[in-house]
Amino acid sequence: VQQQYISLNADIGEGYGAWTIGDDDGLLAVLSDVNIACGFHAGDPSIMRRRVDAAVAGGLGIGAHVAYPDLRGFGRRHIDVPPAQVYDDTIYQLGALQAVCIAAGGRVDYVKPHGALYHDAWTSEQIADAVVRAMRDVDPGLALLCPAGSAMARVAAAAGTRAVQEGYIDRGYLPDGHLVPRSQPGALIGDPEAAARRVLGVLTDGTVTAIDGTVVPLPVESLCVHSDSPGAAALARAVRNALEDHGVGVRPFGRG
Amino acid sequence: VQQQYISLNADIGEGYGAWTIGDDDGLLAVLSDVNIACGFHAGDPSIMRRRVDAAVAGGLGIGAHVAYPDLRGFGRRHIDVPPAQVYDDTIYQLGALQAVCIAAGGRVDYVKPHGALYHDAWTSEQIADAVVRAMRDVDPGLALLCPAGSAMARVAAAAGTRAVQEGYIDRGYLPDGHLVPRSQPGALIGDPEAAARRVLGVLTDGTVTAIDGTVVPLPVESLCVHSDSPGAAALARAVRNALEDHGVGVRPFGRG
Amino acid sequence: VQQQYISLNADIGEGYGAWTIGDDDGLLAVLSDVNIACGFHAGDPSIMRRRVDAAVAGGLGIGAHVAYPDLRGFGRRHIDVPPAQVYDDTIYQLGALQAVCIAAGGRVDYVKPHGALYHDAWTSEQIADAVVRAMRDVDPGLALLCPAGSAMARVAAAAGTRAVQEGYIDRGYLPDGHLVPRSQPGALIGDPEAAARRVLGVLTDGTVTAIDGTVVPLPVESLCVHSDSPGAAALARAVRNALEDHGVGVRPFGRG
Amino acid sequence: VQQQYISLNADIGEGYGAWTIGDDDGLLAVLSDVNIACGFHAGDPSIMRRRVDAAVAGGLGIGAHVAYPDLRGFGRRHIDVPPAQVYDDTIYQLGALQAVCIAAGGRVDYVKPHGALYHDAWTSEQIADAVVRAMRDVDPGLALLCPAGSAMARVAAAAGTRAVQEGYIDRGYLPDGHLVPRSQPGALIGDPEAAARRVLGVLTDGTVTAIDGTVVPLPVESLCVHSDSPGAAALARAVRNALEDHGVGVRPFGRG
Repeated sequence: VQQQYISLNADIGEGYGAWTIGDDDGLLAVLSDVNIACGFHAGDPSIMRRRVDAAVAGGLGIGAHVAYPDLRGFGRRHIDVPPAQVYDDTIYQLGALQAVCIAAGGRVDYVKPHGALYHDAWTSEQIADAVVRAMRDVDPGLALLCPAGSAMARVAAAAGTRAVQEGYIDRGYLPDGHLVPRSQPGALIGDPEAAARRVLGVLTDGTVTAIDGTVVPLPVESLCVHSDSPGAAALARAVRNALEDHGVGVRPFGRG
Repeated sequence: VQQQYISLNADIGEGYGAWTIGDDDGLLAVLSDVNIACGFHAGDPSIMRRRVDAAVAGGLGIGAHVAYPDLRGFGRRHIDVPPAQVYDDTIYQLGALQAVCIAAGGRVDYVKPHGALYHDAWTSEQIADAVVRAMRDVDPGLALLCPAGSAMARVAAAAGTRAVQEGYIDRGYLPDGHLVPRSQPGALIGDPEAAARRVLGVLTDGTVTAIDGTVVPLPVESLCVHSDSPGAAALARAVRNALEDHGVGVRPFGRG
Repeated sequence: VQQQYISLNADIGEGYGAWTIGDDDGLLAVLSDVNIACGFHAGDPSIMRRRVDAAVAGGLGIGAHVAYPDLRGFGRRHIDVPPAQVYDDTIYQLGALQAVCIAAGGRVDYVKPHGALYHDAWTSEQIADAVVRAMRDVDPGLALLCPAGSAMARVAAAAGTRAVQEGYIDRGYLPDGHLVPRSQPGALIGDPEAAARRVLGVLTDGTVTAIDGTVVPLPVESLCVHSDSPGAAALARAVRNALEDHGVGVRPFGRG
Repeated sequence: VQQQYISLNADIGEGYGAWTIGDDDGLLAVLSDVNIACGFHAGDPSIMRRRVDAAVAGGLGIGAHVAYPDLRGFGRRHIDVPPAQVYDDTIYQLGALQAVCIAAGGRVDYVKPHGALYHDAWTSEQIADAVVRAMRDVDPGLALLCPAGSAMARVAAAAGTRAVQEGYIDRGYLPDGHLVPRSQPGALIGDPEAAARRVLGVLTDGTVTAIDGTVVPLPVESLCVHSDSPGAAALARAVRNALEDHGVGVRPFGRG
């Protein structure tokens, strides 16, 4: 039988200057792919370098976690950035991380939009197109890490860019395949056992059970854990252990 | 006889958002090499793209005009940035501009520090070393555009990086080879005739006459005009015409 | 007969650091009330002081031109700032300008939201309420300068805050009382004669003729000219002359 | 006998957006005076409001913790800000905090420069003068919290501003009255017992023993604990308990 693999990703490097957030060391030890903040919502050039050094040393996949320019709002506030500026801002952030990676002997493997940009590009073909064109104009070999069934996935596929679809380990799903908003019950899944069971279901059936019981298709190549959840690293570790117990290896998904 | 060439450079793309400064169109039409702001003292990603597009279309040399992070002070205020952060910030800015250039079908040819960072790296080997190591770690083929006789020139040469020394068309010189501070008489040379005469002297003798009459060696491969001087483009045009009348061509100095 | 008066206002102090925009000197000489940028979309503390000094010296009314935090977008991009943060940000910007005014021997007379915040508070009672509560919690004597017929005007009136309604000298109107978007024909009125005629109509009838011929009520206490239009100061001067020729004086509208 | 009192102060509100730093709740429960960040090195308007609300509720003295504009460097990097801009920036930050306090039913009692600005104003009369003039031009009743024997203390006294001199609970002293740099042995005093003993010495004799054994005069009205030291709140609590055991009350030092 062929060995089955999956990727585990999370956001790291989301401090700024003297400020830190999340357990980057804990996550770096368990993930296969890391989404590194590029300075617009978090992540200054020094933090970027330290996290890239660790990711290269660990053989992890590296993604440019591009965002709207909003340190105050951590990139979580929607901003009416015209698509032409989303294109420009994506190139800028991606290029900055590429240089950090080159200096560290590594490279950027993929792009994953962050926060409000992720949500906007989930549904807006215009925003998704701006991100995908920016990626392709800089390096056509980059993959796009994006939600299963999103505008991003469709736009990338149409452009010839590999869309790596992801599901969330620690978040509940709505029947339409979107995440349960954080303000609603069922949004967060904090129990490692429950998370691991759900992940095995996703891998076996390619589906997830939404909060209303609906079975939703979720064909994913990567699993994401929110790095700012308490116990994120422990949750990721539990899920990784469960996967490996069932013969599923964890490794970077690679480039496009 | 062999044709003689010189490079003419200036800073462009130093607006930000709705704000503009300098006559970029006028300068793009007369220069051979352009120092493009990278977002830390000026220049947002959209301005960077527009200026890079024009520079690539015009066949100009492109430099990353890296700076201390200081929009309010236009990069002209000294900041005690530790050398390790100067290294990180140089990589970040350089990478961002590289990606913009790649998307436009061009490339970055050189790095030129801006404002207070330029002055600090003029005399501090530590700061110069941080900039040069950053450049080399990202792309060893990059040249460094720097003052004649500076710490930057020495550090670059020792590291194997091409140091392209420059003189200033529009600024007076002190007997020690530094520029006359803007607050003192003789700092600015605004008369195109005088500027052109002086430039021809530099090319003929490799020297410039300082404000006290001292003859100072000034072995340069590029001539810089300050883009925020009134009439900067006209001054550059007059100098270029005088050069061409004397059989000196103007062209990019190329990579390292 | 009683002398009739009207206020003329515009935005000033919208430079940042080395960057300038608009003809502040020209406008300061013709306006009665000035909306001074408070650092979030434009206007650093030094520019604020210089403009406040001039406004106090000229006996002009002074308004806090509060905005979303967005230097890159000049405050013109909508940002999903929660109302509680709009409240906090309004207090911060207002307080900063108050201190500048106190140091200059003056005071803040009113608040006028800028750009995207102005447009959001035009129609959203929630956003308008955040601004009005912030003003009242800092100084209940402040007036609110706002569009005629807006949510801001209603919310302010309900709270006991004086709403000073304004019309635009240099912009066309839609039949519903909103401005013709800048991207459409008829958006800008650049001819001083036409602008002056229209202003006199507003003062005589309290109405303006929309681009489709509809007569729209426009009961205003202040007239605004966009300071970033070319010739804004000349336009304001022409309108002021026309007003004075018809016996209408121009003076600050005062506090609430 | 007359009851003796001393003030205990520390920096709070030094988070930004999603980032937090320090144990603000623990410190708010034990201090008499709090230095609240004003947005330039840390502290956004929403954090400022929350901390001011808590300080007003607790009856604490409130200080404007003004800084160089440097989120990335946490205000700890020296920047060559001209004194005229230090004046402008102090007014801006002070005014912003004043408005937050007014909205919360409180007021600003004093100013304390932060980080590199504190160190620059410790020795530079020019920088100290810029801060003191700014304070006086906004509210002559404000006190200045500053190091014992500093340029700030002298400039304030000469100008008629109350200089409240402070000593550091958790830092070693050099024989010249400056703090032992963090990079040297003896810089940090982490043991609550040792800290409490030293504080009682300061109160009894008005002196502190420097790291080389020299007895240095330290006539202070307030004691500061660095809020970013691990266990800062516990250290402050231990010192407060020791003070109260010896009949010394802890209360705000009040205005000028």
